[in-house]
Amino acid sequence: MKITATKENLLLGVSAVQKAVSTKTTLQILTCIKLEVQKDKLYFSATDLEIGIQCHVPIEVMEEGATVVPAKYFFEIVRKLPDSLITLETVNENELVIKYENSQLNFKTLPADDFPELPDIDSEYELTITAAELKQMIRQIVFACSTDERRPLFTGVLCEVENDNFRMISTDTHRLALKQGKIETKAAKLLSFIIPAKILSELARLVQNDEEICYINISKNLATFLLDNILVVCRLLEGQFPNYRQVVPTQYNLKIKTKTKLLSEAVERISLFSADNNTNTVKMKIEGSLLTIFSQSELGQGYEQIEIKSDGEPVEIALNYRYLLDVFKVIDDEFLTIEFTGSLSPGIIRPLDNDNFLYLILPVRS
Amino acid sequence: MKITATKENLLLGVSAVQKAVSTKTTLQILTCIKLEVQKDKLYFSATDLEIGIQCHVPIEVMEEGATVVPAKYFFEIVRKLPDSLITLETVNENELVIKYENSQLNFKTLPADDFPELPDIDSEYELTITAAELKQMIRQIVFACSTDERRPLFTGVLCEVENDNFRMISTDTHRLALKQGKIETKAAKLLSFIIPAKILSELARLVQNDEEICYINISKNLATFLLDNILVVCRLLEGQFPNYRQVVPTQYNLKIKTKTKLLSEAVERISLFSADNNTNTVKMKIEGSLLTIFSQSELGQGYEQIEIKSDGEPVEIALNYRYLLDVFKVIDDEFLTIEFTGSLSPGIIRPLDNDNFLYLILPVRS
Repeated sequence: MKITATKENLLLGVSAVQKAVSTKTTLQILTCIKLEVQKDKLYFSATDLEIGIQCHVPIEVMEEGATVVPAKYFFEIVRKLPDSLITLETVNENELVIKYENSQLNFKTLPADDFPELPDIDSEYELTITAAELKQMIRQIVFACSTDERRPLFTGVLCEVENDNFRMISTDTHRLALKQGKIETKAAKLLSFIIPAKILSELARLVQNDEEICYINISKNLATFLLDNILVVCRLLEGQFPNYRQVVPTQYNLKIKTKTKLLSEAVERISLFSADNNTNTVKMKIEGSLLTIFSQSELGQGYEQIEIKSDGEPVEIALNYRYLLDVFKVIDDEFLTIEFTGSLSPGIIRPLDNDNFLYLILPVRS
Repeated sequence: MKITATKENLLLGVSAVQKAVSTKTTLQILTCIKLEVQKDKLYFSATDLEIGIQCHVPIEVMEEGATVVPAKYFFEIVRKLPDSLITLETVNENELVIKYENSQLNFKTLPADDFPELPDIDSEYELTITAAELKQMIRQIVFACSTDERRPLFTGVLCEVENDNFRMISTDTHRLALKQGKIETKAAKLLSFIIPAKILSELARLVQNDEEICYINISKNLATFLLDNILVVCRLLEGQFPNYRQVVPTQYNLKIKTKTKLLSEAVERISLFSADNNTNTVKMKIEGSLLTIFSQSELGQGYEQIEIKSDGEPVEIALNYRYLLDVFKVIDDEFLTIEFTGSLSPGIIRPLDNDNFLYLILPVRS
């Protein structure tokens, strides 16, 4: 292969695929990136066999071909290149020569044929969604997943497609987030699948333009996501996700409405006394239009009081402050509501006047 | 004590003293901050017995007094306070009550009398320097100090005062930096002392306003630095600093002039091949008006060529690229010069037309 490219485009390609590069493997080739020239494009590919990412950028081609370079060092050098035209050329079977200005770097390479192929997707794309919608869904969902690899199912996000509705559900068994989005093209059939949360996070990061469309394809055990110039392939998680419909209460004894920011800042301050008390617990007490947040530890104790709108019976409940702060970060609405049934029942947090998101949080028994 | 203060002023005080708080001690009180109200000011003090920092901020006083609070948690809570007026009041001998809006936090405290006093400085301030000048000197010097605590002398900066000249010298025995500054008021006598580099770094960070004046006092084993509202006290390092005058060559066989940024970027790229070769070495070859930077490792090899102005005999020399990049970061001038005597002799780097700074770097024997 022999091409010229801008630094900007090389950097775009090499950055896009980094997260698919294996960092814990004994197979050297999985720590590498494959570069492949086809027509007027350079394709960057990386895979750790769990996830594969491919990104293509425009270049000027003198000669087609392919090679494999060490991901870490190639990324570092591309970042440091000057903003000028860069020539890449393979020589001597196992070298890539990078030329710019009065300079030349020769990199040792591996044979392109040894690089694992990304799986072919044979079926049609089954649904499409705007990148903006997908990003927002992912942001409001992935934080509630578990990171405990011993229970892999909960490190994934349950996705359900029904007509033009796209639902994502995540839970670590202490809390649950549910987000309802709209897809652009209807799915032919009801779909249900589980995607690893870290792959969704990476997908959200790869979106360069909120206007682009994401094409999603689901086969028996693979999902692919196609953006303008990026393809992400990953394995689905297998298993039976708990029935979230049974968990979410349909009634409540008390509903309060408050400013998201006020509540978030109050919990953040009071939680200082919770971080030291091992249980990560803050207590909330609601009586009439007064919400009191309280905590104590060896350091001392503190309370904050917020004026709220409320409707229902008084309640006192102990909650994990981390689970509260997590959800406050992803609610962009000025106001939120919380529904309570009692001290030992879950609370349901929703943005005000917005049915597309809900967050269930279990109380701490004290 | 009972006072009201703005969040901004509390944060200023508590941030200023953090670096003097002990992080590795069994003495609980050294992990704390002393708060003391005198006249219309709140004094924050912290010390780990090596360094002491005191900062005062304006407040409204209802009652004088003093108390001692845990540094880490007090800092965290102050950072999170709302931008409103905050009341601090000591109650029950061992509690500090923080009130704001509809909220109240009670912190456990320790007795103020148990807090170690910062040492009294009895003599007059011996020299003054503008904060801007001091900051710039520190920036160009501390990076060349050693961080190896087994040789504590080289973790310090040698300071020499002679008339209105203030020199700082640092070395880790592989390279040496020398900076010449101007003081505002002449010293009565020739002074020579060694200050721990980390204390100078902290001092530079504490300067809030380049226009302020720093008053420096040196006693037998202590140095104090007084800024507008901040006092820093530290122990001097003891020992015989090597005679730097003997080390710096007075002649050279080759002198080159080049753009700082060009050379810096070239070394940064080529060093990619050095980071992997264990020796951190790049080779420089100068012939006529061409400077070639070269390196190789298992990854491959690379060179860059830069047009330079040069005067003298050709040279080829191996240098530690980290020591080069370090100094390029603190040279703000567009051009720099390097003087060489041979492959086995030190190189001397200076900003062009600026005698106030020099940097000596020993070659790597290969």
